[in-house]
Amino acid sequence: MLGNFTYHNPTRLHFGKDAMQQLPQELARYGKNVLLVYGGGSIKKSGLYEQVRAMLDAAGKTVAEDAGVMPNPTLDKLREGAQRARDCNADLILSVGGGSCCDYSKAVSAAAWCEGEPWERFFLRHEEPTEKTIPVGCVLTMVGTGSEMNGGSVITNTATKQKIGKVFGPAMFSHFSILNPEFTYTLPKNQMVAGFFDIMSHILEQYFSGTDDNTSDYLMEGLLRSLIHSGRIAVKNPQDYEARSNIMWTATWALNTLVAKGKTTDWMVHMIGQAIGGTTDATHGMTLAAVSIPYYRHVMPHGLAKFRRYAVNVWDVNPDGKTDEQIANEGLERMAAWMREIGLVMDSRELGVTEENLPGIVKNTIMLPGGYKQLTAADVEAVIRASMA
Amino acid sequence: MLGNFTYHNPTRLHFGKDAMQQLPQELARYGKNVLLVYGGGSIKKSGLYEQVRAMLDAAGKTVAEDAGVMPNPTLDKLREGAQRARDCNADLILSVGGGSCCDYSKAVSAAAWCEGEPWERFFLRHEEPTEKTIPVGCVLTMVGTGSEMNGGSVITNTATKQKIGKVFGPAMFSHFSILNPEFTYTLPKNQMVAGFFDIMSHILEQYFSGTDDNTSDYLMEGLLRSLIHSGRIAVKNPQDYEARSNIMWTATWALNTLVAKGKTTDWMVHMIGQAIGGTTDATHGMTLAAVSIPYYRHVMPHGLAKFRRYAVNVWDVNPDGKTDEQIANEGLERMAAWMREIGLVMDSRELGVTEENLPGIVKNTIMLPGGYKQLTAADVEAVIRASMA
Repeated sequence: MLGNFTYHNPTRLHFGKDAMQQLPQELARYGKNVLLVYGGGSIKKSGLYEQVRAMLDAAGKTVAEDAGVMPNPTLDKLREGAQRARDCNADLILSVGGGSCCDYSKAVSAAAWCEGEPWERFFLRHEEPTEKTIPVGCVLTMVGTGSEMNGGSVITNTATKQKIGKVFGPAMFSHFSILNPEFTYTLPKNQMVAGFFDIMSHILEQYFSGTDDNTSDYLMEGLLRSLIHSGRIAVKNPQDYEARSNIMWTATWALNTLVAKGKTTDWMVHMIGQAIGGTTDATHGMTLAAVSIPYYRHVMPHGLAKFRRYAVNVWDVNPDGKTDEQIANEGLERMAAWMREIGLVMDSRELGVTEENLPGIVKNTIMLPGGYKQLTAADVEAVIRASMA
Repeated sequence: MLGNFTYHNPTRLHFGKDAMQQLPQELARYGKNVLLVYGGGSIKKSGLYEQVRAMLDAAGKTVAEDAGVMPNPTLDKLREGAQRARDCNADLILSVGGGSCCDYSKAVSAAAWCEGEPWERFFLRHEEPTEKTIPVGCVLTMVGTGSEMNGGSVITNTATKQKIGKVFGPAMFSHFSILNPEFTYTLPKNQMVAGFFDIMSHILEQYFSGTDDNTSDYLMEGLLRSLIHSGRIAVKNPQDYEARSNIMWTATWALNTLVAKGKTTDWMVHMIGQAIGGTTDATHGMTLAAVSIPYYRHVMPHGLAKFRRYAVNVWDVNPDGKTDEQIANEGLERMAAWMREIGLVMDSRELGVTEENLPGIVKNTIMLPGGYKQLTAADVEAVIRASMA
């Protein structure tokens, strides 16, 4: 824990099969006007929409709706949502959906009453809002992003083909989040496993950086082992409550700021994945899956000791009689085998990456310094080419 | 994660060598009157007292002092502190010391303006305060209790020889805590290692319970591995910043409510240790150390699968060709060897337990139901006798 840091995470999390019973007392904390934010209508099929509306009615709320939040929320949609929040003078933004919906709700909270252009201020200049913001609450229906307990918000500018993440401070975190693992059962299997890999990638982005001896690394090894174990069970039986609940909880702690404390982090897999997503609109977790093994093979020589530790502590590779390279490679092989086992996309061509759009993706990849190797554009191109297997 | 639960931990933690630089902005959040709480004066020797007083003066605070908080804070002292808090109309209680000091400050916060008898209300009936309470802030100088980020408060009633812990809700948690690992360097080695074992015991009390498959167990295995690793380094070189900082962070997360979420917990080692401490005034961590191995040998047959897992995942016992009992026993042997290596008390007679006071200790041991075996008084006596090696 070598660095100085502040840890502050005020979100109230209500977890479990009965977590929705906590919603009425949460609603009572806020004013009358609620902007209900959701996506493409899956919550209407599942019955969750009716349940939430009934609770809002019982709480005497005046409800405005902002539906149709897409998997990669766009700047145009954000402008529309900010207008709606102003129009209804929202006292609470209630996000009912996955991480994109919660991401979007935080952006609406910041954008609704901000002076100037939200894209410029929050996503290009990474400012914190100084004007009035609107409390966000979240009912989560999909796991992966950790958005329910952090300040993350990713918005796609379709005009410039930029997909950029802003990390807001604790004041902008969801005030409360309701996590019922059963709400995640209705998700199609490919989206479920994409979420699993998003979780794994969040952990690995924070794990594969630095050479210090950090408690966070031990916590991450625990989270990874839990995810690998429960992921195998959930793929065979998506309604295994224990597996799905462990994964939901792991997802929250993988990206709620804890495991990054006191250490450096990487995030280049996300930068490359987001550049692919900005061009192809492919599912976020799948873009990460397609480039991860090529990326880690590319940087492994520059952080060999950590890759060796990963192989032994996370994938139970027996190190006896092997070189560090052999051990590290065996760890990545076991990781790739697990990825194939749960059904992840391992070839970025399946996501729409082509020879034609590759230069634009490379150009739109934001370069970060925290990993084991500072990538050049040529490195990014090499990684993506290796992912076009 | 089978149970329903709410996780909410609003404490702002400032960690690192420069963490004290955050104190002025914390002080600015509260009113003028500060009750400064500390222990036996070690903070005067270390210079921390002068540093804190200077920051309080610079912030324009009116300071009253409540010194002399003992390692096992007494009910008499609590009554005195509550009176002082009322007398100075404290807007903030600033605890500068170890876990006992922070425990005590929370109790003073609850007791200052409460109607009726604090011992009855908070420690015997486990009520939450409903009257005005006073915000607590903490500058931590010793690790172990986790008091800096939880609602725990242990008070000893010397008249009845009862040492009882109350766990307050999030509203009573320290509002902010300042954790500089260097502040822990001045502690004598026996108190340092007692703190290390307090941390280990906190984790094990939450780990050795239940048969479910819980992400919390994986997190605890990570925390334990980090503690074992860094504890060995710190005992050889108490000023190894990386080891001491990892241990300080591990201590916070061992007992800030996270790893108990969604599972049952035990806490009988603490109940027995606190009964010993209530009679002998022995150092808390040492009372836990003395009874832990005898206790775990006693209950192991009732939770064998978990003890086997502990041996393999935490102590790297190779399970090949061994029975579960052999594996589990080897785990406890390695744990005992580590305890001897870092210099813990393994014999409760060294702490003042005698044939004469044993019946009273057994009688004062509070029985909890969450472990692998519901103990009887005869079990408690057998465990303590086995600890009088």
